[in-house]
Amino acid sequence: MKAYRDMTREELGIEIEALKKEYKRFQDMDLSLDMSRGKPCREQLDLSMGLMDALNSSADLICEDGTDCRNYGVLTGINEAKVLIGDMMENNPDNIIIYGNSSLNVMYDTVARAFTHGIMGNTPWCKLDKVKWLCPVPGYDRHFGITEYFGIEMIPVPMSENGPDMDMVEKLVSEDEAIKGIWCVPKYSNPQGYSYSDETVRRFARLKPAAKDFRIFWDNAYGIHHLYDDKQDYLIEILAECKRAGNPDMVYKFASTSKITFPGSGIAALATSLNNLEDIMGQMTHQTIGHDKVNQLRHVRFFTDIHGMTEHMKKHADIIRPKFEAVEKIFDENLEGLGIGTWTKPRGGYFISFDALDGCAKAIVNKAKKAGVKMTGAGATWPYGKDPHDSNIRVAPTYPSIEDLKTAATLFTVCVRLVSAEKIFSEMN
Amino acid sequence: MKAYRDMTREELGIEIEALKKEYKRFQDMDLSLDMSRGKPCREQLDLSMGLMDALNSSADLICEDGTDCRNYGVLTGINEAKVLIGDMMENNPDNIIIYGNSSLNVMYDTVARAFTHGIMGNTPWCKLDKVKWLCPVPGYDRHFGITEYFGIEMIPVPMSENGPDMDMVEKLVSEDEAIKGIWCVPKYSNPQGYSYSDETVRRFARLKPAAKDFRIFWDNAYGIHHLYDDKQDYLIEILAECKRAGNPDMVYKFASTSKITFPGSGIAALATSLNNLEDIMGQMTHQTIGHDKVNQLRHVRFFTDIHGMTEHMKKHADIIRPKFEAVEKIFDENLEGLGIGTWTKPRGGYFISFDALDGCAKAIVNKAKKAGVKMTGAGATWPYGKDPHDSNIRVAPTYPSIEDLKTAATLFTVCVRLVSAEKIFSEMN
Repeated sequence: MKAYRDMTREELGIEIEALKKEYKRFQDMDLSLDMSRGKPCREQLDLSMGLMDALNSSADLICEDGTDCRNYGVLTGINEAKVLIGDMMENNPDNIIIYGNSSLNVMYDTVARAFTHGIMGNTPWCKLDKVKWLCPVPGYDRHFGITEYFGIEMIPVPMSENGPDMDMVEKLVSEDEAIKGIWCVPKYSNPQGYSYSDETVRRFARLKPAAKDFRIFWDNAYGIHHLYDDKQDYLIEILAECKRAGNPDMVYKFASTSKITFPGSGIAALATSLNNLEDIMGQMTHQTIGHDKVNQLRHVRFFTDIHGMTEHMKKHADIIRPKFEAVEKIFDENLEGLGIGTWTKPRGGYFISFDALDGCAKAIVNKAKKAGVKMTGAGATWPYGKDPHDSNIRVAPTYPSIEDLKTAATLFTVCVRLVSAEKIFSEMN
Repeated sequence: MKAYRDMTREELGIEIEALKKEYKRFQDMDLSLDMSRGKPCREQLDLSMGLMDALNSSADLICEDGTDCRNYGVLTGINEAKVLIGDMMENNPDNIIIYGNSSLNVMYDTVARAFTHGIMGNTPWCKLDKVKWLCPVPGYDRHFGITEYFGIEMIPVPMSENGPDMDMVEKLVSEDEAIKGIWCVPKYSNPQGYSYSDETVRRFARLKPAAKDFRIFWDNAYGIHHLYDDKQDYLIEILAECKRAGNPDMVYKFASTSKITFPGSGIAALATSLNNLEDIMGQMTHQTIGHDKVNQLRHVRFFTDIHGMTEHMKKHADIIRPKFEAVEKIFDENLEGLGIGTWTKPRGGYFISFDALDGCAKAIVNKAKKAGVKMTGAGATWPYGKDPHDSNIRVAPTYPSIEDLKTAATLFTVCVRLVSAEKIFSEMN
């Protein structure tokens, strides 16, 4: 098809009328579909039902070191869980704390602790006039939600397919002592599915922050969440790279099994330097006696080891890969060449990022909603929910069935075309 | 036996020599026993192994309202868990948030949130020059640990068998706006096993705090942890009483199943007014997507309802009641009438509180330790770990086997007698 901007006014008028009819057809279908959140679908959850059998009433709930998992104690997690998650995160078990069910909660706590008590002897952030944060955009709304809740000034940093704009990151971080952190989803990023290049990771590890308590919040949420067995992204391990670069304490690294077993019933973890661990444990010891060791053991028994987890992830990929490919095919067929949007084709993670013409995202999401398809709110991928271009839309293809997804994706493309055509048409006047 | 203070110097000298021999006999036994923490014993943990079968891979993990417990969502807990825990806490399910595995963590978070964001629109505590807290003594060391960690000035309030000194509580709370909270273990208190009298609860509900953001931290840790079926303490429900008294928002109430099923793998909960809940949820929504719903459902399926839980608690009582009675018997036999100590005889909870002669607690605990019996550190029951009388010792009889416990309790009485006799003897000089 011809790009919309190359059409005559008449051609575009005809296109708009056709699209309106098409949109009406979808409206009449009384749809109720959801592409808004990165939720696993039922078939994915079914993959982990064996977790429910990993421990039963005849099971031995004693750890290798003799700890009874059923009782109090073991602040930082059982050793066999640290080994498993260490292999998952590519970190030494000694650098790991196993937490409860939510890595988001670990991130929140990490910011909260810095606020109330400061990091490694530095001034608590609540005593500072100003705390700032770098936010690669588009990014994850729940990250931005934490920093906004703490009144932290968020500075957007543009993403490219290699990661955040490192010239900007280096400059800002080295000049401004008020900048205390940066949110990163370094692999199969949310929402674009980009993985940071080797150069990007190297430059991160070599940052020279003005603030001694600047930390990289490295949320490796999709570290093993590949869509393809033969086409995988590899990421330089950041803790090791920081250590080599002489910045061993600069990173907090987060991960969880939320999208491996059950969201909400998995185990979350933090990996960081021994200095940071000691600092954190000084707080943890007042916060809890320990996290759910039975669930830690359950995960270890279910997977046995990292190979078991890797094989498990292939089954996830087999379920969600066709969904990503279906959306991409529909986008290709219905939008390619029209000059009204671009989208990413990730090799892993949970999202596709769509960039519409400036000023169109809200209208597209709204139109989809009115036809019964829920998308992530436009703007959500930016700090404060405000996308200055009003162009980015996050597409989450995992949760709906493939048939529903095809319907939802097609409707989405109709909305993109209609909103874009009307915008271009109105500009022709 | 004659009270030590009534003995002649010679009699006491003979007693000391006999006790030294007795102590030596224990030392030669190479003991390694632990009466330090309120931990359930193995037999108690075995009672809940059925929890591991409550959900298996054939189980339906869908809630009554259709929620798939395996997926993301449901911030405040599944409804059936709120009903069960509501019955346990004697509160309306609508007033309850179900959390993760640790009520201590919920208390920590509650203080931390008040620090960073304030309570219901009041000034965040981190912005105040001074925050103070009332601490009934003797009390729970981990409570005091939280407030100490946040730099809160702790003011001891004496306990009686009716609860805290309410004259003092009323006076301090009404006069000093810096006082923001009080730690309470209202039923089978830690460590004395006292339950607050009706008058005490009534006076709590009618406090007139100077600070609008004063809150009672009502840790009902042992609400259903009776030792006797026929002799139980009953407590006026504090939320209802506060509501009746026109102070609906003055209480945060905490509980968990840690000492019902598995410590570390239970479910914790908070009950409070709808205003407080709304305030809390404004933060929770940034902290997590939700707690472990599968474990919530597991508990519901295991107990069915509060009657199932009540029956379960009788089995706990059957295991630990003989332990409490054994310790009391040994204390009676070995210490009664000597005038060197008093101890509580609780009807529930996890502890016996022992008050030695002033200045003797540390020496007693130290002597027991040197003979291989670990007690809770002397002073732990006071803020900052400093018991001004050096007299209170917490005894935790649940964890050791009954045989070990008898040995440990006997050794303890030998230490009490020896330390006390030597003290009195030295004062005779």
